[in-house]
Amino acid sequence: MAVLLSTKAHTMQDWKAALLAVDPALDVRLFPDVGDIAEIEAAVVWTAHDMMELRRYPNLRVIVSMGAGVDHLFRPPGPPPGVPVARLLDMRLTQGMTEWVLLNVLRFHRQDPEYRDQQARKVWHELPAPETSARRIGMLGLGELGADATRALMALGFPVMGWSRRPKTMAGVETFHGQDGLMAMAARSDMLVCLLPLTPETRGVIDARLLGAMKPGGYLLNSARGGHMVGADVLAALDSGHLAGAALDVFEPEPLPADSAFWTHPKVILTPHAASITIPSSAAPQVVENIHRARAGQALINLVDFSAGY
Amino acid sequence: MAVLLSTKAHTMQDWKAALLAVDPALDVRLFPDVGDIAEIEAAVVWTAHDMMELRRYPNLRVIVSMGAGVDHLFRPPGPPPGVPVARLLDMRLTQGMTEWVLLNVLRFHRQDPEYRDQQARKVWHELPAPETSARRIGMLGLGELGADATRALMALGFPVMGWSRRPKTMAGVETFHGQDGLMAMAARSDMLVCLLPLTPETRGVIDARLLGAMKPGGYLLNSARGGHMVGADVLAALDSGHLAGAALDVFEPEPLPADSAFWTHPKVILTPHAASITIPSSAAPQVVENIHRARAGQALINLVDFSAGY
Ligand SMILES: NC(=O)c1ccc[n+]([C@@H]2O[C@H](COP(=O)([O-])OP(=O)(O)OC[C@H]3O[C@@H](n4cnc5c(N)ncnc54)[C@H](OP(=O)(O)O)[C@@H]3O)[C@@H](O)[C@H]2O)c1
Ligand SMILES: NC(=O)c1ccc[n+]([C@@H]2O[C@H](COP(=O)([O-])OP(=O)(O)OC[C@H]3O[C@@H](n4cnc5c(N)ncnc54)[C@H](OP(=O)(O)O)[C@@H]3O)[C@@H](O)[C@H]2O)c1
Repeated sequence: MAVLLSTKAHTMQDWKAALLAVDPALDVRLFPDVGDIAEIEAAVVWTAHDMMELRRYPNLRVIVSMGAGVDHLFRPPGPPPGVPVARLLDMRLTQGMTEWVLLNVLRFHRQDPEYRDQQARKVWHELPAPETSARRIGMLGLGELGADATRALMALGFPVMGWSRRPKTMAGVETFHGQDGLMAMAARSDMLVCLLPLTPETRGVIDARLLGAMKPGGYLLNSARGGHMVGADVLAALDSGHLAGAALDVFEPEPLPADSAFWTHPKVILTPHAASITIPSSAAPQVVENIHRARAGQALINLVDFSAGY
Repeated sequence: MAVLLSTKAHTMQDWKAALLAVDPALDVRLFPDVGDIAEIEAAVVWTAHDMMELRRYPNLRVIVSMGAGVDHLFRPPGPPPGVPVARLLDMRLTQGMTEWVLLNVLRFHRQDPEYRDQQARKVWHELPAPETSARRIGMLGLGELGADATRALMALGFPVMGWSRRPKTMAGVETFHGQDGLMAMAARSDMLVCLLPLTPETRGVIDARLLGAMKPGGYLLNSARGGHMVGADVLAALDSGHLAGAALDVFEPEPLPADSAFWTHPKVILTPHAASITIPSSAAPQVVENIHRARAGQALINLVDFSAGY
């Protein structure tokens, strides 16, 4: 049994070493040196890998995505019919995302852009400080990442509300679902944080209507996917002052083109899809676990639900 | 019985209202309209209040400082002999400080200055991400504020060490005391956070010797008092690159003069003594409690230890 490994060139060797550290007997093939494709039973791929290529592999039993999001894999033509797809649920990935969310919530909560500006002008002036308990956060998505960020924000005293596809109960969190729920939550949110998967239903969810439902002076954080935002609507809300700031890690397309207004907008904090990075050594055990399970014909872990698209 | 209230002009009315909300019967006098000084039994003062003035009050039973730090009160001539001094221990004050520490630890940990610089140059480049578990934080001071910040940092996965005056035990924290302990802790710290009170012993503790004991590329956070730093030593460590960055909330003197190099140093994140702001409504109950206790001749709460100076 052979395992295909396909990812960004600079992490290929790290991934190979991490997989072999868990199971030294694995026959790991580095794309494009695949050898006999009939021997390949598992494919561990970065989300950009070409699904047409995988459709040629006659004995493929599992595809493991190297990230938490699988939207790229589901773009047409999509994964080979009948081959299950697993994603990563990794403590370190989750921790990294929660750090990104906390940094940016605290940045805006603590008026850091204003203080950076004051420093540049040598202004010594203490700004009135809004209370943490009055800074209401609306979390779009209460999955692995959204739920963890929610817990961390609540531990700091922020009131958090959350929106999910199915009705959900979470201690201390006021939850919403559906379009009406989304608008109701936005109307009471001082900051919206997007941690949704990108699916046909969630594409473009951050649009003029959603932003318009927020109170003036709110903040937007998006570290899910660029496709969740209607870019022009976000820029218009920033320009009009309706949004006081935005922290954005994801764009469409990526890398963000040099002529995008997001690069230079004074109210935008930009990171280059760096909110959370998969660390091969941390993620390898569950990947190898799924390779073993696929070989033994056992139920896989962290499976993607094809009907929901995430 | 009358209570003297003396603070910054713009918070005077807030403080008066907050005290009266707890005890409407209080006879609150706003400095300098003190009336008959013989009637004043309690003084609720901002740290800048003149102690010579209070020495004239014949029946003063308690001085309550409106902040967590009391170093200003203890400058010569110091508080009137025999009059106990209480300080504020306030959940909201502590929460604000912990937010400031988290924001700045996460800022440096997540390489935010580098990402701000990349955004300015339109560079889309994901930086290698150091692991949270490898970012060792040395906390100077494990009191109300230091211990709370320590807990919050540990909850996020940062390893934290702590330095205090007396030997101390804190779950999950490697603790140090004394000069040797300080140097040993600094040698293993990737970031040093200062939350010490300013006393003759701690003045100038952040000097070339302490910074030199740190590994190259470390970070300094100081939100205690400007007097803890030897400013020239901090600037020299930043200039040489030994320190990769500093987040500073406190200076000597304050406001920071316009010609100070801290304003313009590219590696300095400056806030104008705004890390944690006392909120009168939150702090008033314990202040009134101490006024009542002083009147009844009972033991006071949150007393300052004159021999230790904090
Ligand atoms: N920027 C980065 O570096 C980075 C890193 C990792 C991940 N990500 C992104 O983060 C996303 C979320 O990851 P995750 O692990 O938290 O996903 P997850 O565990 O699958 O959770 C997804 C959450 O979104 C909700 N949701 C899905 N469709 C919805 C809809 N139509 N309406 C309302 N709520 C909906 C789900 O609702 P239910 O609870 O009802 O299922 C669930 O709460 C990933 O898909 C990926 O795109 C970004
Ligand atoms: N920037 C702002 O906005 C702001 C706001 C509030 C407070 N502050 C500053 O923060 C300071 C700390 O407040 P806090 O409430 O945490 O004080 P605290 O409860 O009195 O704690 C002080 C800590 O420092 C330690 N310490 C004192 N002298 C020491 C020495 N010589 N060597 C080693 N450790 C020493 C103490 O050791 P032990 O445990 O052995 O006593 C204790 O752990 C205040 O004094 C104030 O100056 C700044």
